[in-house]
Amino acid sequence: MGTRNTRDAIVEAALDLFNKDTVAAVSTNHIAREIGISPGNLYYHYRNKEEIVRAVFDRMVGDWDTVWQLPPGRAPTASDLARTLERTFELHWRYRFFQRELLALLTRDPQLRDRYRAVYRQRLEEFTVFAESLAAAGVIRSSIESWFTGLLEGLWIIGEHWMGHLEIVGDPSDPAQVRRGIQVIVAVLDPHLSDEFFADHSQEGPNP
Amino acid sequence: MGTRNTRDAIVEAALDLFNKDTVAAVSTNHIAREIGISPGNLYYHYRNKEEIVRAVFDRMVGDWDTVWQLPPGRAPTASDLARTLERTFELHWRYRFFQRELLALLTRDPQLRDRYRAVYRQRLEEFTVFAESLAAAGVIRSSIESWFTGLLEGLWIIGEHWMGHLEIVGDPSDPAQVRRGIQVIVAVLDPHLSDEFFADHSQEGPNP
Repeated sequence: MGTRNTRDAIVEAALDLFNKDTVAAVSTNHIAREIGISPGNLYYHYRNKEEIVRAVFDRMVGDWDTVWQLPPGRAPTASDLARTLERTFELHWRYRFFQRELLALLTRDPQLRDRYRAVYRQRLEEFTVFAESLAAAGVIRSSIESWFTGLLEGLWIIGEHWMGHLEIVGDPSDPAQVRRGIQVIVAVLDPHLSDEFFADHSQEGPNP
Repeated sequence: MGTRNTRDAIVEAALDLFNKDTVAAVSTNHIAREIGISPGNLYYHYRNKEEIVRAVFDRMVGDWDTVWQLPPGRAPTASDLARTLERTFELHWRYRFFQRELLALLTRDPQLRDRYRAVYRQRLEEFTVFAESLAAAGVIRSSIESWFTGLLEGLWIIGEHWMGHLEIVGDPSDPAQVRRGIQVIVAVLDPHLSDEFFADHSQEGPNP
């Protein structure tokens, strides 16, 4: 494998193992064995597990980058909102280890926490622009008032802590339960959604 | 001190120390020293730290017991909702170590997790009855539809993970930020609240 491919394979294998077990339970040896390279070769690419966790985090950030972006050159529609929610919970599932261990990971690694906070601020801005555009396009009903920020922060918390919630009172290894997070988001959004949304996407609604 | 008083003092001191630091950083010796008893005396009452954590949890459950109960013998009002939100976030503050370390504590102690899950189910029922009564009394606008459960689950997650959210992107040691959780809850509830709520409790609203 070339350097690039080996780095990718390490990140991919680490993500897979972290999801299956916990970050604490996965060693660098474990990751090396998974892709059939020597521990020495792994250490050539990443000095320790923290660096691998950060690399997985960076890949996650990259995968999220386009999710809350507006469609280029046209107003967003009810379908855009539905698809964006779908993609959101697909990524929550794909990187489920991260939400599950959110607090512990960020507490252990201040460098990771700083990156996370920067991404949080950026996402909340994108999130706000997206919601404002939906309101302007009549997909959601609310006018933009000052409590809108509170609503968006509430929706962020539900999304970001859904896996933690399932960890405690449900089953975070069941994709159907992970997907049910969409219904909770739609239930919170319900009074703000236009009839258009429910006409086009009744299957996304809380009464599937 | 009598046996009862000593047990109470241990729980009280443990809560205080857990809030100031973390559960991991507080030893039983630390707790014994805080209230001026010998480690042997402490072990006479609690065999280990896990038992003390469970005792603090039981006290918390007791303190919560009346919060989401309906006022006896009359319909709930907008003031009842406002006071209930106040008390909710007062208790989140009083037992802030618990939310901060929620996942870690429940993962480490399956016995505690089982108790927590039982309490969660009970609270969600009380929560639902409270909300249904508010709707019946016209304090909140929504008719009871099936998505109502999703809305309540969303509100629960915001409440229960607010400290975790502050831990990551804010300051969980600042009572003003903890209290700001009320504004997020009110923002989510906003379209459901009657004018009566905002007329009587504009100071609780998102535009104080």
